[in-house]
Amino acid sequence: MSIAPFAVSLGDPAGVGPEIVAKAWEQRHERALPCFFAVGDVASLSAVWDGPVARIEDPSKAIAAFNEALPCLHIDECGPVTPGQPTYEGARCALQSLELSAGLARSGSAGGIVTGPISKKQLYSVGFTHPGQTEFIAERCGVARSNAVMMLMGPSLRVVPITTHMPLKEVFEVLSVDLIKARAHAAVKGLQRNFAIDKPRVALAGLNPHAGEEGALGMEEIEIFAPAIEQLRAEGINISGPWSADSMFHDRARATFDVALCPYHDQALIPVKTLHFDDGVNMTLGLPIVRTSPDHGTAFNIAGKGEAHPGAMIAAIETAAISAENRLTYCRSSG
Amino acid sequence: MSIAPFAVSLGDPAGVGPEIVAKAWEQRHERALPCFFAVGDVASLSAVWDGPVARIEDPSKAIAAFNEALPCLHIDECGPVTPGQPTYEGARCALQSLELSAGLARSGSAGGIVTGPISKKQLYSVGFTHPGQTEFIAERCGVARSNAVMMLMGPSLRVVPITTHMPLKEVFEVLSVDLIKARAHAAVKGLQRNFAIDKPRVALAGLNPHAGEEGALGMEEIEIFAPAIEQLRAEGINISGPWSADSMFHDRARATFDVALCPYHDQALIPVKTLHFDDGVNMTLGLPIVRTSPDHGTAFNIAGKGEAHPGAMIAAIETAAISAENRLTYCRSSG
Repeated sequence: MSIAPFAVSLGDPAGVGPEIVAKAWEQRHERALPCFFAVGDVASLSAVWDGPVARIEDPSKAIAAFNEALPCLHIDECGPVTPGQPTYEGARCALQSLELSAGLARSGSAGGIVTGPISKKQLYSVGFTHPGQTEFIAERCGVARSNAVMMLMGPSLRVVPITTHMPLKEVFEVLSVDLIKARAHAAVKGLQRNFAIDKPRVALAGLNPHAGEEGALGMEEIEIFAPAIEQLRAEGINISGPWSADSMFHDRARATFDVALCPYHDQALIPVKTLHFDDGVNMTLGLPIVRTSPDHGTAFNIAGKGEAHPGAMIAAIETAAISAENRLTYCRSSG
Repeated sequence: MSIAPFAVSLGDPAGVGPEIVAKAWEQRHERALPCFFAVGDVASLSAVWDGPVARIEDPSKAIAAFNEALPCLHIDECGPVTPGQPTYEGARCALQSLELSAGLARSGSAGGIVTGPISKKQLYSVGFTHPGQTEFIAERCGVARSNAVMMLMGPSLRVVPITTHMPLKEVFEVLSVDLIKARAHAAVKGLQRNFAIDKPRVALAGLNPHAGEEGALGMEEIEIFAPAIEQLRAEGINISGPWSADSMFHDRARATFDVALCPYHDQALIPVKTLHFDDGVNMTLGLPIVRTSPDHGTAFNIAGKGEAHPGAMIAAIETAAISAENRLTYCRSSG
């Protein structure tokens, strides 16, 4: 069984999505990218790029077209496209592109999805009720949103934030032994399925400075983190910590673990974006389909100027391919 | 007026302090280090190093000795030294070394102090009542400890944490417009005096994910950070933000500011230690004397094994010299 072409949703047509997808296609040979096709408005591609586009009606047609042109599953009625100027129709188009891509991956017509950047604000304006693309995809896959787990990664670091988009103050109410365990399970399973790491080394960051310094700088490490670690170890999971978060992310420290679990957003995202801003990938763990996305936004301010770096989009496509390949093996070996 | 030799306290005699000071001296020529002398037990040097040591009675004697040997202002009664095994006498010795060094800098006999790593736990055991070396030095300089401000720096980044060693939960009680302003003032003044940056560009990190996303992910940015920025700008300070902390520290972003102000410990220290773990320098702003230190601890586990990197100690000595030089000019130009 070979892997179907990957669906790459263009995201908001007025953002940098179309440009970085086109630039990624230009590098298909040198980066040995797997076959993929764009999902979105052909006009959003031609507005920023004069390379060859092949309109396709069916994902399977992408394979024949890919070498000569960027295949695109066209979405109609997206309205006029002006890079940098998001519109109501454009947001609807982004949503359709996302929905179609997810459906294709669910049905097996696409090997997985790579989602281009959308504007949440724009999506909300067209009645989108999910916090972000991840939750929407989870729902379309029949997965509870609490089980769809964000992992951010670059060439030298993978991180899973235990809590994500909430006021920092609320983290204290939400953190629990069960939540840490759930995220650790998702991380371990995710690394096994997507990266063929049999027994992932998980490093858990503490919440407080110096991981609480034995209680002198906070009690969460003693009351919540230590029991979670103990229970996870009893299950056979290779987890260490809680570590002082400021000493976990330099070169030598990163070499000692496969994934870092961090209690809150910035603690996880600061190191990965500091190191891998231009090729950071957001991968959703816990889904039946492969889903990655470049770890940046629509960047409306530079859309259409030819300045957008395709690095993160290329990395997201590469990662989706690696993940799909490993899942195939994982499926087989799990029976 | 030339700058006096720098006093380098050896810190805990059983830690890596003596070794990294000796290794720094070995690199005095290739790194063009200023004249400095160790302050501590000569035996702690000979326990880990067979290079030449010159016992001096007076800092001024360091100049003649420095080329041929590591000058050391000896402190007696430190007890037997076994690297990796801290003792009560060793902790007393570390404290004396710190006190003597600070006094020499205060009197002008030393150009500034570079403090080797101590163990807080060990110091507490000998009746030390300050949270750390910084507060002790501040007191000896007649400066309120709240005005002695920690700045961490490496070759590509300077950060000032607005709050430091407290449970993360307490940060919410402590953060205020006044505290942010006080830290911004210390940072600006510090960069002017120590680095001759006339109008430093200050970047203020938000507290919440995405700097609160206009209130959707927390209100502190609107209620506390925005007014602080407004008031600081009215004073003519070049301050921007509040920025999303995860997007502030990649290469291109770092080039846009001279110092980052971060509301809490990990947010400030994660990026600087991720990038500059082996040559990070801790500098205290707000003191009448120059004070730097390598940004790492005693590392008792590797003491005496020859494995300690002198990079941060060398950087701390270099930074002290740069700072002392600039202060001289600043003094003159300020009248």
